Amino acid sequence: MKKLLLLTAAPLLLAAQASEPNATPQTPSDVIAASTAEDWRPVAPNNLLIMTLGSGDEVFIELAAIFAPVHVTNIRNLARAGWYDGISINRVQDNYVVQWGDASERKPLPETVDRSSPAEYDFAMTESHIAGFEDVQEGNYEPFSGYLEGWPVAHAPREDGQRSGTLIHCYGMVGVGRGNNPDTGTGAELYTVIGHAPRHLDRNIALVGRIVEGIGALSSLPRGTGPLGFYEEAEQRVPIATIQLASELPKEEQPSFEVMRTDSDAFRAFVHARANRTGWFIRPAGAVDVCNVNLPIRRAAAD
Amino acid sequence: MKKLLLLTAAPLLLAAQASEPNATPQTPSDVIAASTAEDWRPVAPNNLLIMTLGSGDEVFIELAAIFAPVHVTNIRNLARAGWYDGISINRVQDNYVVQWGDASERKPLPETVDRSSPAEYDFAMTESHIAGFEDVQEGNYEPFSGYLEGWPVAHAPREDGQRSGTLIHCYGMVGVGRGNNPDTGTGAELYTVIGHAPRHLDRNIALVGRIVEGIGALSSLPRGTGPLGFYEEAEQRVPIATIQLASELPKEEQPSFEVMRTDSDAFRAFVHARANRTGWFIRPAGAVDVCNVNLPIRRAAAD
Repeated sequence: MKKLLLLTAAPLLLAAQASEPNATPQTPSDVIAASTAEDWRPVAPNNLLIMTLGSGDEVFIELAAIFAPVHVTNIRNLARAGWYDGISINRVQDNYVVQWGDASERKPLPETVDRSSPAEYDFAMTESHIAGFEDVQEGNYEPFSGYLEGWPVAHAPREDGQRSGTLIHCYGMVGVGRGNNPDTGTGAELYTVIGHAPRHLDRNIALVGRIVEGIGALSSLPRGTGPLGFYEEAEQRVPIATIQLASELPKEEQPSFEVMRTDSDAFRAFVHARANRTGWFIRPAGAVDVCNVNLPIRRAAAD
Repeated sequence: MKKLLLLTAAPLLLAAQASEPNATPQTPSDVIAASTAEDWRPVAPNNLLIMTLGSGDEVFIELAAIFAPVHVTNIRNLARAGWYDGISINRVQDNYVVQWGDASERKPLPETVDRSSPAEYDFAMTESHIAGFEDVQEGNYEPFSGYLEGWPVAHAPREDGQRSGTLIHCYGMVGVGRGNNPDTGTGAELYTVIGHAPRHLDRNIALVGRIVEGIGALSSLPRGTGPLGFYEEAEQRVPIATIQLASELPKEEQPSFEVMRTDSDAFRAFVHARANRTGWFIRPAGAVDVCNVNLPIRRAAAD
């Protein structure tokens, strides 16, 4: 018999639900299956980057425009200018990050790029933010870690009595490389997380998005053998053919994704199901790390 | 200027320490540099597996004999019998696990393998365990998560008044695939974690070790496109040439590793330094997840 780590007991559970039509869905898959169109929000085309590697593999990135507006504007302008086309992946550090940019460090930036971006490492939580925040995990790194408008967010009190929010470095989140202060990065150099959440980076660097599909093309790249996982030889670098903004493509060519709304009962049921696994599991954990929720993201159905 | 995520300020800090000879080391690297031979324990040769892939890449695994003795005995016997030689990696699921075993599911097990291993998913914490436990993180998944005898361990009260300990599914930990109860797995089918710690597996399956070197050869494999990340075609499977126990090799050919002792002041200083990063960091986290400690493991110096 094949030893699986996860054996789902879906038929059994569906049968149980059939006899109790109002029962809470039991598995994460059940929750997704039971969700309605209102439980999902679209990824806006001007927040969707399509990175095409030299191999033809595609990676799709949703930009967090609401939390890092200046950096996201820069990234859109870099994509529109074709600036990213022909750059490369230069660093793959195991259990940490994949990083890409201009290896020559000489490619001139377009005029449209703000070279003195503010440090968008955190933001003031508004009343509306606090109302929309879905708490998942308390007391590790930050008092509260959960989801806000479909993004992993932590928040803590500030000295001025307001609350300070920050995006969280979960697996697949995308950020902007930076040097020392006061250089906060332009968006020309980007990275994504390919390991256990390095939350010591939270509040220290600008997160600007997350990979919504195709991360395997990055996380499976050969690890760099130089310091910090940089490739040591130019020919080891992985060419990037293009990075395009979906909104710049003809409408019929725009890929279309949906994210589960995190202020929905569906999301609450999903988190509960992730924390209380059934079937193969003997002892449900009863809790789930904010970065182990695995927020549902899917291709939108064709119109 | 190259944008690094991590710019260490080592020279500056070393200068600062020079003027304060008794100051606590400031960076994780400083702590390792300041450690003494007594701060490390060797990896015993009969707890060290050497997995050689068909490509020639080597992966080194330390077995946690103290926490899963029956499964570890099975694994040693399978290695001694050459049973693993010629099996393959059959599953690579992004942000989750790499799994290897006999894809044919027909290879007979040697007589020396216990086919009814107990469920070594947790263990009773002894007085000595409690004394040797180094707490790192409280309140997420388990009341206490830290390190015990060089291993990531969580513990919680049991109904009988004792405490129940369990190994933690951090990145690089190795476990034994199993089917449904009461099959607990023999050790013939193994997996390792290549993503954010799936702690919902803790207490549900037997962890038996961790990768001490070479995980990049597994984490960089192409992701499987079948359900649960299984490879869909036989030719996609990655051949394993051999898995050998170091103690079966001639002494001069035995690789030699050391793990930082987790009941040492050096380890406490290391955890503190990981939680309070300096240099490039603007706002130290002040905390560290048990799976983001990155316990120091190194090749032992030659005799």
